[in-house]
Amino acid sequence: MAKYILGIDLGGTNIKIGCFATSLKLIGKISVPTGAKMEPGFIVEKLYSTSEELLKQNGLSLADVSGVGVGSPGAIDLSEGVVLAAPNFPLFKNVPLKDMVAKRLGKPTILENDANAACWAEHVIGAGKGVDHMALLTLGTGIGGGIISDGKLIHGPSGGAAELGHIIIYPDGRTCACGQKGCVEAYASANSTAARATEAVQKGAESSLSATLKEQGQITCKDVFEQAGNGDAVAKEIVDGTAKALALVCVQLANITDPQLIVFAGGMIAAGDLLLNPIRRFYKQYIGHVFNRDSLKLCYGALGEDAGIIGASSLASGG
Amino acid sequence: MAKYILGIDLGGTNIKIGCFATSLKLIGKISVPTGAKMEPGFIVEKLYSTSEELLKQNGLSLADVSGVGVGSPGAIDLSEGVVLAAPNFPLFKNVPLKDMVAKRLGKPTILENDANAACWAEHVIGAGKGVDHMALLTLGTGIGGGIISDGKLIHGPSGGAAELGHIIIYPDGRTCACGQKGCVEAYASANSTAARATEAVQKGAESSLSATLKEQGQITCKDVFEQAGNGDAVAKEIVDGTAKALALVCVQLANITDPQLIVFAGGMIAAGDLLLNPIRRFYKQYIGHVFNRDSLKLCYGALGEDAGIIGASSLASGG
Repeated sequence: MAKYILGIDLGGTNIKIGCFATSLKLIGKISVPTGAKMEPGFIVEKLYSTSEELLKQNGLSLADVSGVGVGSPGAIDLSEGVVLAAPNFPLFKNVPLKDMVAKRLGKPTILENDANAACWAEHVIGAGKGVDHMALLTLGTGIGGGIISDGKLIHGPSGGAAELGHIIIYPDGRTCACGQKGCVEAYASANSTAARATEAVQKGAESSLSATLKEQGQITCKDVFEQAGNGDAVAKEIVDGTAKALALVCVQLANITDPQLIVFAGGMIAAGDLLLNPIRRFYKQYIGHVFNRDSLKLCYGALGEDAGIIGASSLASGG
Repeated sequence: MAKYILGIDLGGTNIKIGCFATSLKLIGKISVPTGAKMEPGFIVEKLYSTSEELLKQNGLSLADVSGVGVGSPGAIDLSEGVVLAAPNFPLFKNVPLKDMVAKRLGKPTILENDANAACWAEHVIGAGKGVDHMALLTLGTGIGGGIISDGKLIHGPSGGAAELGHIIIYPDGRTCACGQKGCVEAYASANSTAARATEAVQKGAESSLSATLKEQGQITCKDVFEQAGNGDAVAKEIVDGTAKALALVCVQLANITDPQLIVFAGGMIAAGDLLLNPIRRFYKQYIGHVFNRDSLKLCYGALGEDAGIIGASSLASGG
């Protein structure tokens, strides 16, 4: 009897697939490297073989699956099931991913933006359970976003809403992968945080990160947070820049959709209080106090890396 | 038979009231100076006497009225019918305006933010007729906003959403009435446009506006657009600053709720193409091109000063 749902989280680094029974009960999950720079045909074959492997591991087969949910990076045309464009994945342009997956796996398939899927998961069983007005920012290579208003994801006319990484923080500022200047992604993603630190060191800032750059040939975002935790002044300044940019996005969202909760997710939240505390501090500094925005809660996601597969699965089973 | 609806637009300068029959047919309207600096008790009495006068002018009485819609500036708690706060009207703080009006006029009353009401009107019968994803900015003393997503106004949990005048354009920039710094209202409202021109002239910029300041003792927003139209370079620069700030708000909205249309309304649109053309130009310059945002239409409202009373009336009759 077909009663299981596959939730797929398609990332630039890994493909994660979860097999869920009713009520979002996770039966098993698998993660494999994406490879091949997100080439659509290759990806769909990989989704197929990896799904079969996951099902086999759990004593199931595709015959037991009633539906598939896919979370993909980029702007999605929901009605057509097409990935229109994904700034960090040039090969993902006008890809009819929903039909491709539905055909290859032979199952009803829904396609959703990956950050929207994660936002939905945190809303249904995570940090935003019971919160009908919320937003989520995924902090990784890039910055993705999802917004829930009145208990529903905001999609816009064709799925292009909630591209929160591309909120302009500093007009005429750093150039972003999307072509705009001054987007929050150009300051506060893992890549941009590392890049700003590298630039500071290359310009001669005295920091323990200079040694890191010499020894490793690069500075990672993790290095920046580690050295900030060790008290390095330059690293702390870079982290402050990241936190301030994210806090400014929270101020914008407060004035636009007025969420009760903004959840941060993705790899960068491993930095813990080193990131969350300054975000909260800058939010308090930059929010106006006329509109009672002080009650907006800022926190980390509760579902970790599983948010994407949980959200995709939930949406595939009808939300 | 009670079948008429009163739509009220409560402004800092004028109170406008319209009497509507079914299907938003305007029977008659009236406008009186607000006076008394928006003191709540005084305002409610004025609403009562002005409503009576309007009805009398049209051969009607309160007995013919089945409901009242009020559009008020400020953040509204919709469930409680309370004006929480209005940056430009310090006396409007935690005012239970819905109950006050309902009691004095003896009619079922709805309360809505004034810009939301105007946005709703343009959506129902104006420039956004048939457009389910849109936003509206009212450009006057301050800047108000409304957002419609999937055919519904976005209110947030208690009515505090769509305060588009308080989107931060330039962090750490000009101080706004709301307490934040760098809000679009602090650059692009009529007051702020005039203030920026005055400051430029006072700092010694060579402009025909210097003579205006000397002769009139002040520079108005209208003066700025007039002189920009006459080719004055400083006035044109000030207008460009206003247009760029508004274009940046459009970019933010594109990335957040992805509207198909953004409508500008309010007194400043009297400037015509002198304002709309540079807004469109800056939007093209600042929008990223990965997400197909080029189709976003920017235009002026079609309902002029009646948008507020039409929207309030429409919402009072159930949308």
